[in-house]
Amino acid sequence: MVEEGIKQLVQSLNVFYLLAGAVMVLSMHAGFAFLEAGTVRVKNQVNALVKIIVDVSIATLAYYFIGYPLAHKVSFIQSAQSLTADQGFELVRFFFLLMFAACISAIVSGGVAERMKFRPYVTAGFFLAGVIYPFFEALIWAERWSSQFQGWVEHIFGAPIHDFAGSMVVHGLGGWIALPAMLILGARMGRYVKGRSKPIPISNIPYLALGSWILIIGWFGFNVMSSQSIETISGLVAVNSLLATAGGIIGGLVFGKNDPGFIHNGALAGLVAVCAGSDIVNPIGAFFIGLVAALIFVKAFVWEQEKLKIDDVLGVWPLHGLCGVWGGVAAGIFGQEFLGGLGGVSLASQVFGALLTVVYALLSGFLLYGALDKLMGLRLSEEEEFQGADLSIHHITAYPEDKLKV
Amino acid sequence: MVEEGIKQLVQSLNVFYLLAGAVMVLSMHAGFAFLEAGTVRVKNQVNALVKIIVDVSIATLAYYFIGYPLAHKVSFIQSAQSLTADQGFELVRFFFLLMFAACISAIVSGGVAERMKFRPYVTAGFFLAGVIYPFFEALIWAERWSSQFQGWVEHIFGAPIHDFAGSMVVHGLGGWIALPAMLILGARMGRYVKGRSKPIPISNIPYLALGSWILIIGWFGFNVMSSQSIETISGLVAVNSLLATAGGIIGGLVFGKNDPGFIHNGALAGLVAVCAGSDIVNPIGAFFIGLVAALIFVKAFVWEQEKLKIDDVLGVWPLHGLCGVWGGVAAGIFGQEFLGGLGGVSLASQVFGALLTVVYALLSGFLLYGALDKLMGLRLSEEEEFQGADLSIHHITAYPEDKLKV
Amino acid sequence: MVEEGIKQLVQSLNVFYLLAGAVMVLSMHAGFAFLEAGTVRVKNQVNALVKIIVDVSIATLAYYFIGYPLAHKVSFIQSAQSLTADQGFELVRFFFLLMFAACISAIVSGGVAERMKFRPYVTAGFFLAGVIYPFFEALIWAERWSSQFQGWVEHIFGAPIHDFAGSMVVHGLGGWIALPAMLILGARMGRYVKGRSKPIPISNIPYLALGSWILIIGWFGFNVMSSQSIETISGLVAVNSLLATAGGIIGGLVFGKNDPGFIHNGALAGLVAVCAGSDIVNPIGAFFIGLVAALIFVKAFVWEQEKLKIDDVLGVWPLHGLCGVWGGVAAGIFGQEFLGGLGGVSLASQVFGALLTVVYALLSGFLLYGALDKLMGLRLSEEEEFQGADLSIHHITAYPEDKLKV
Repeated sequence: MVEEGIKQLVQSLNVFYLLAGAVMVLSMHAGFAFLEAGTVRVKNQVNALVKIIVDVSIATLAYYFIGYPLAHKVSFIQSAQSLTADQGFELVRFFFLLMFAACISAIVSGGVAERMKFRPYVTAGFFLAGVIYPFFEALIWAERWSSQFQGWVEHIFGAPIHDFAGSMVVHGLGGWIALPAMLILGARMGRYVKGRSKPIPISNIPYLALGSWILIIGWFGFNVMSSQSIETISGLVAVNSLLATAGGIIGGLVFGKNDPGFIHNGALAGLVAVCAGSDIVNPIGAFFIGLVAALIFVKAFVWEQEKLKIDDVLGVWPLHGLCGVWGGVAAGIFGQEFLGGLGGVSLASQVFGALLTVVYALLSGFLLYGALDKLMGLRLSEEEEFQGADLSIHHITAYPEDKLKV
Repeated sequence: MVEEGIKQLVQSLNVFYLLAGAVMVLSMHAGFAFLEAGTVRVKNQVNALVKIIVDVSIATLAYYFIGYPLAHKVSFIQSAQSLTADQGFELVRFFFLLMFAACISAIVSGGVAERMKFRPYVTAGFFLAGVIYPFFEALIWAERWSSQFQGWVEHIFGAPIHDFAGSMVVHGLGGWIALPAMLILGARMGRYVKGRSKPIPISNIPYLALGSWILIIGWFGFNVMSSQSIETISGLVAVNSLLATAGGIIGGLVFGKNDPGFIHNGALAGLVAVCAGSDIVNPIGAFFIGLVAALIFVKAFVWEQEKLKIDDVLGVWPLHGLCGVWGGVAAGIFGQEFLGGLGGVSLASQVFGALLTVVYALLSGFLLYGALDKLMGLRLSEEEEFQGADLSIHHITAYPEDKLKV
Repeated sequence: MVEEGIKQLVQSLNVFYLLAGAVMVLSMHAGFAFLEAGTVRVKNQVNALVKIIVDVSIATLAYYFIGYPLAHKVSFIQSAQSLTADQGFELVRFFFLLMFAACISAIVSGGVAERMKFRPYVTAGFFLAGVIYPFFEALIWAERWSSQFQGWVEHIFGAPIHDFAGSMVVHGLGGWIALPAMLILGARMGRYVKGRSKPIPISNIPYLALGSWILIIGWFGFNVMSSQSIETISGLVAVNSLLATAGGIIGGLVFGKNDPGFIHNGALAGLVAVCAGSDIVNPIGAFFIGLVAALIFVKAFVWEQEKLKIDDVLGVWPLHGLCGVWGGVAAGIFGQEFLGGLGGVSLASQVFGALLTVVYALLSGFLLYGALDKLMGLRLSEEEEFQGADLSIHHITAYPEDKLKV
């Protein structure tokens, strides 16, 4: 009788706990929106905001009807009666994991900003949340195949791939999918003139900072609630996230020479990298993971833009792609017991997981954006791009009243 | 002994749970503030921000001393000793429900923006949170009369009026109270010239988007924590809110032709409409509730502004008034078991509830704003309105440094 | 067996509860950032944002390695294995209390804005969070000395110093440390010309309002979670915080003559003042504490700027320093049983605590900023200050794209 009551209470608490996480990760999408709005030019701010909020709605449908059933073997075509068994815990779990799925398109968004058509962008978001992400999720995390696949990985490399909150599964995947999208799209008009790089100034650092802060705050839900039940909550995850953020900020400050963009994105680099091992590394290790992530972000951002001449507006490939992969590998290093970690992780498995992420992301990215380019064309016309996505797609500017004054 | 401990723990958890909801709904008021600041002209942004934050403070006094005692039969004129019985659960319940009460004036604010005097605006807020809302709350929800009244409704129409989180009690009431206020005030100068509609451009879409995001995120507290105890938490409420949001965004996108205002407000339309039935409808039903809400909002907004020539700056009558009523009725449709809902709801009761909301709101709105117009005058002078509410009421502009440059 | 399960559950819940508080107080730092960004001139907005986020990272290191061990007698140089005993509760407690420690520098930041060098600013932040704050915390609150010291205070003045959430320990300390920093720095160029006050207009009231809202919302974590365990949660703390906010807003409105800066900062003044007694005063008392705090803030702000000619950009000395001290004393008045409070508090102890705060803060502030001035120089060169901290320190403006248009 008492035990039954406690079981019921824990059930309620799990719904509350995971819902708190879901809402926090939902709020991160507002962060993505403002990070992008601040980094693009004024003529593309509205488009940035609209892409992200529409993404969330499209991902909701795709993941509810296709993605979650694919990965987790649960269909929601049920009566409300049966959906509310367990006080709707499965629904809340869907909500929480959906918010991860929706990140993939939000990550790509920052890379392809200022030059991509709206319709193929949204269509891609549907396939990302409905098929591409859930397939990978099913392999590493979810009910569909993970036990077989991870069993095989453990057999070969000594341990399953460890990715507690998605350095690889979410951020790495998103960042590396963005790469083919950006390559197919090409650079913005005027970004590289006769082979010379001409950086395009960003519009609004306060919006960028606001976006970064919203992401930082929500990220504590992303990481902590990845335990998915109140009884497995771990203060270590929270403090590792915090120390990686600190490492990322200090790295952005030092390696980025006090540039506000590198500092605010450095925090995010640290958070991307710490996801994978946040449950097992020592906080001191987490600090170094974040510090190195900021170094990778700053150096690779410059290299990408200036040497590789890839026009990655928000730097999503170095931020999510490279730091995500770094985070996966770092969990295999700093997670070891002799470095103060909890152990139970294999560096070989982590490297394999990182490679798998890169290969799967590149393949599916080329396939998806290649097909969409063929079918619909990805790129705005020169005139539309010149005018800005706001006027050409949404028929309005970010500050409509201002136009009257000019 | 163990049972006593568990009872104590559940008490603590209820305080924590409802407090989380209260803080989330408090944050929605920041959302109201930015939604309005972004939608009005620059010369009225400060006034928008000030109205909302002052509203909260006035509503706090009105509801603490008058409204909550009126609706819930509890007086807070007690010692701290007795207030902390039950770890202050009753106080937190007051906090949570106050945040609903304070919404009424925040909703009206968006309709009457850019032309209303400050003093009558604030005075109205006092009566809305102190008397008009609590009276209606007492009838439908609260201790004072709801059991008798809802018993009578059930006797006549087969079930009590079902309004889980306030589509009618909060949003419908607010939206329909705003209507007489706007009619008495009249349109802004220059909005309709010689019977022709001349839309006034809004100032700042990023602020509008920020306001919308803050509202969306906080709304999960508004809906979920309406269960008011941890043991009755339901994941269904959360996911219904999410799917209605998705429906609203997609509706805003499609029916609003990719306009950022319709998309970001479409999310809110979906959330307004899903409140009533969020605990009983199927998520697929919730999606349609949101989709239809966005359709209603877009079409009625244009009809109101262009045909009825009512100058509703933020569209609060279609958004809260019409979508609120739609939500009440929709709970009676999609809540039925044969549509995958939990049942226990009567369409007739819902239609009656919707009509009651409209009638009560119109009556009290005409009475309140009519009386205030007689006693204090509602409208700024032409000169004040031309100059903007910021300079004429607050003696400052939103960007004081900028003025030096001109 | 059942009791063990409950004990485990309570442990998990404490981690969840205190983590929620930690994240809410973390979010307050975004509030500090926007409050300052809105109050300084456009040419110093980036610097405001960067100072606050870098502060958090520096404070994290200083408090993790020095401050927390100093105050709480716990070293974190441990394996992850031992850190996760108790599900990492000690780590989360560190996170929560760190966010208080990091407030000191964030408070100073608003006072010394627009004219201070970056390096000494950051260095000061390290000593504030690593030594100066933890030493005082150890005396009043923490394991190191508080039981002896508070025992002595109780012996002399009849009760320990009561400062539930830090009116004195956090806000008073920060506000009074800022005073010597501002005196050593001197006023901004052009602020006082030939002994006449020439107010410098602020840049952006919406940012100021956003910062204020973020602070208000996060403050409920600051105050409520100061109970540090779920079983001691008190709804009284939440509602006292709310009523003090209402008092502060109404005070800002009335005494500040409807000025948006006074209204939004008035809310913060109320919250600063209510921290100390939020667990023991009656909500009606809390309202008056907030109302008086706003009066103090408005009057002292004008007096400080116009008579004392101290250039305190955000008014942090009246806001945090004076209202903090007022809050400490007010807890000794409104906490008394005959004023509806819970009692157990001594006015003499509170006055002593307030004096101790002022003396300790002034001494350590003069020492710290005096030494840094000698060693590094605190002040930007005239040319750098004229150009703005954004360009001279960060080599970028807040709106880089705009520069192209000029």
